[in-house]
Amino acid sequence: MTTTEAAPGTSMAAEIAEQPQVLADLVRRAAEFRAVAEQLARARPRFVLFAARGSSDNAALYGKYLAEVLLGLPAGLVSPSTTTLYGAAPDLTDVALVAVSQSGGSPDLVEVTEQAARRGAVTVAVTNTPDSPLGAVARHTLDIGAGAERAVAATKTYSATLLALHLLVAGMRGEHSADRIGDLAQSCLDANAERVVDAAHRLRFADRIITTARGYSLSTAHEAALKLAETSYLVTRAYSGADLLHGPIAAVGPETAVLAVTGTGPGGAAMAEPLSRLAAQRAEVLRVGAGDGAQLLVPELPEELSPVLEVLPLQQLAWQLATSRGYDPDRPAGLRKVTETR
Amino acid sequence: MTTTEAAPGTSMAAEIAEQPQVLADLVRRAAEFRAVAEQLARARPRFVLFAARGSSDNAALYGKYLAEVLLGLPAGLVSPSTTTLYGAAPDLTDVALVAVSQSGGSPDLVEVTEQAARRGAVTVAVTNTPDSPLGAVARHTLDIGAGAERAVAATKTYSATLLALHLLVAGMRGEHSADRIGDLAQSCLDANAERVVDAAHRLRFADRIITTARGYSLSTAHEAALKLAETSYLVTRAYSGADLLHGPIAAVGPETAVLAVTGTGPGGAAMAEPLSRLAAQRAEVLRVGAGDGAQLLVPELPEELSPVLEVLPLQQLAWQLATSRGYDPDRPAGLRKVTETR
Repeated sequence: MTTTEAAPGTSMAAEIAEQPQVLADLVRRAAEFRAVAEQLARARPRFVLFAARGSSDNAALYGKYLAEVLLGLPAGLVSPSTTTLYGAAPDLTDVALVAVSQSGGSPDLVEVTEQAARRGAVTVAVTNTPDSPLGAVARHTLDIGAGAERAVAATKTYSATLLALHLLVAGMRGEHSADRIGDLAQSCLDANAERVVDAAHRLRFADRIITTARGYSLSTAHEAALKLAETSYLVTRAYSGADLLHGPIAAVGPETAVLAVTGTGPGGAAMAEPLSRLAAQRAEVLRVGAGDGAQLLVPELPEELSPVLEVLPLQQLAWQLATSRGYDPDRPAGLRKVTETR
Repeated sequence: MTTTEAAPGTSMAAEIAEQPQVLADLVRRAAEFRAVAEQLARARPRFVLFAARGSSDNAALYGKYLAEVLLGLPAGLVSPSTTTLYGAAPDLTDVALVAVSQSGGSPDLVEVTEQAARRGAVTVAVTNTPDSPLGAVARHTLDIGAGAERAVAATKTYSATLLALHLLVAGMRGEHSADRIGDLAQSCLDANAERVVDAAHRLRFADRIITTARGYSLSTAHEAALKLAETSYLVTRAYSGADLLHGPIAAVGPETAVLAVTGTGPGGAAMAEPLSRLAAQRAEVLRVGAGDGAQLLVPELPEELSPVLEVLPLQQLAWQLATSRGYDPDRPAGLRKVTETR
């Protein structure tokens, strides 16, 4: 770091742009993931638990769908406080616990992982910092290899974590993950460079933004909401398209901006009803996805891989909105990079 | 229903006021819950899954803490779409699946419950409508007995569901649940009747409201955010106090209103750091809880029971905010009572 003041969002922009390379590098290391996947498969877990905070928690939500749908294993997201605050001591025989943390430095995740191993779980750390306290306590450590992340809002570590989880699950199924993902990521960034400027212009007065999706893409909706909250000082909230219809649709009107992630496959198809209700309520809807009519474009991919790329235009949009509103997304007012919650 | 136009929020106010009676009635039926709890305990589940949507999903989050901490069982919230959209077919031997739905009419929850039973799970429905499709497919059905709920925003069915889950878990542990909860609910409503008027006045210009808590009370923060979203046309979002520090604290400033639920016990104690960071960011914080300095008061209870009452002043506040802003919380623009998501 130099003493020269960089332009606002320089680091975040650079890290968004690095993603094609980061993802391509990761696919080249598929054998490492396969090796851990094979050991994990041999342990024959019956349940998968994910432990994570912040952006990594959204990655864990993606992992939960992979585990339930592709591995046929019931899965859950751990509430670390049940261990760290209340001393819960569940029997975790037959459980695979996957701790997801770019820094590997959150004391609560380290404690949850250590305790889980003691109670019988096979533990895996998915991290950008393999020589971290988390890496030290986990039985297996998978390095997402995204390189140092300087901007406070996670971008490349998020997409790399998603791909790492896909590589792991594909490895457990004896399958390969998407080889062309690096090139597709580059096309995706290129295709949206101008589009996010238009989208940010449309949203320039919005102070009520919600995000929505179903299925695998729900992780994208959550991550987009978090990125906007972190960088543009907005209260943004993600809803499953189904949960939206169960209540919060009431609060949607012409002054509500909605980012709807509508991928291919059953998840995207299931967004038809939420989209039609949103139109009836006259919300300002921006669609993110493959196919006709989307304002932000995502290359076509198998649905279970799409979240790796769907988030890219939403990161670009968050950057664009923040900088056009005069904020510096690299240095939000109240955020530190490693947060030491217990 | 008559053709006379009732005053805005008449049903919601009446249903908020019914809660002391509903909770007292439920405690008197503890034996029914104990009987199901004993059968459930005999099945010796190793994992607990909850399936729910909307307010019931917040109740399920409370249930997840009860299962993990008090039963020592790992637990998860089901994403219904993995079954209904993607046909996931996990082996659910040794799993207890608890489906939570006041109406018992959501097709996705019915399908998830039916499929779970077929895959080996012991299934329990916790519902206000025992003779519903959900009640018909679940192995055990527990009636929360809250009576017809006319307002679209759930109030009495939420607190009753929480108490029902507590009765079930207490029954599995061979313990009794709180006998005095009805009287305490009445004191709670009385103590906050004027306080919510003051609180709504403080929040009269707020359009950025977040809610936060840790541990058991996190369910309260989620439910409060949903109530405000449904009744006052706000984008309101709940964060765990820990997750708040991991990112969204960046978006908090003097124009952010924060409802912080700070109960007794470890969950409340763990809110000290988030509260101090919120103060440093000069947020407008309203505390909800037992003890000194809280703006909205909750009677002292064991922490694991507190969520049953914590939500009461937040329901009163949502009603007050909505009506003082000229909305009718009984008839939000875009909401139906039974939502048929798949």
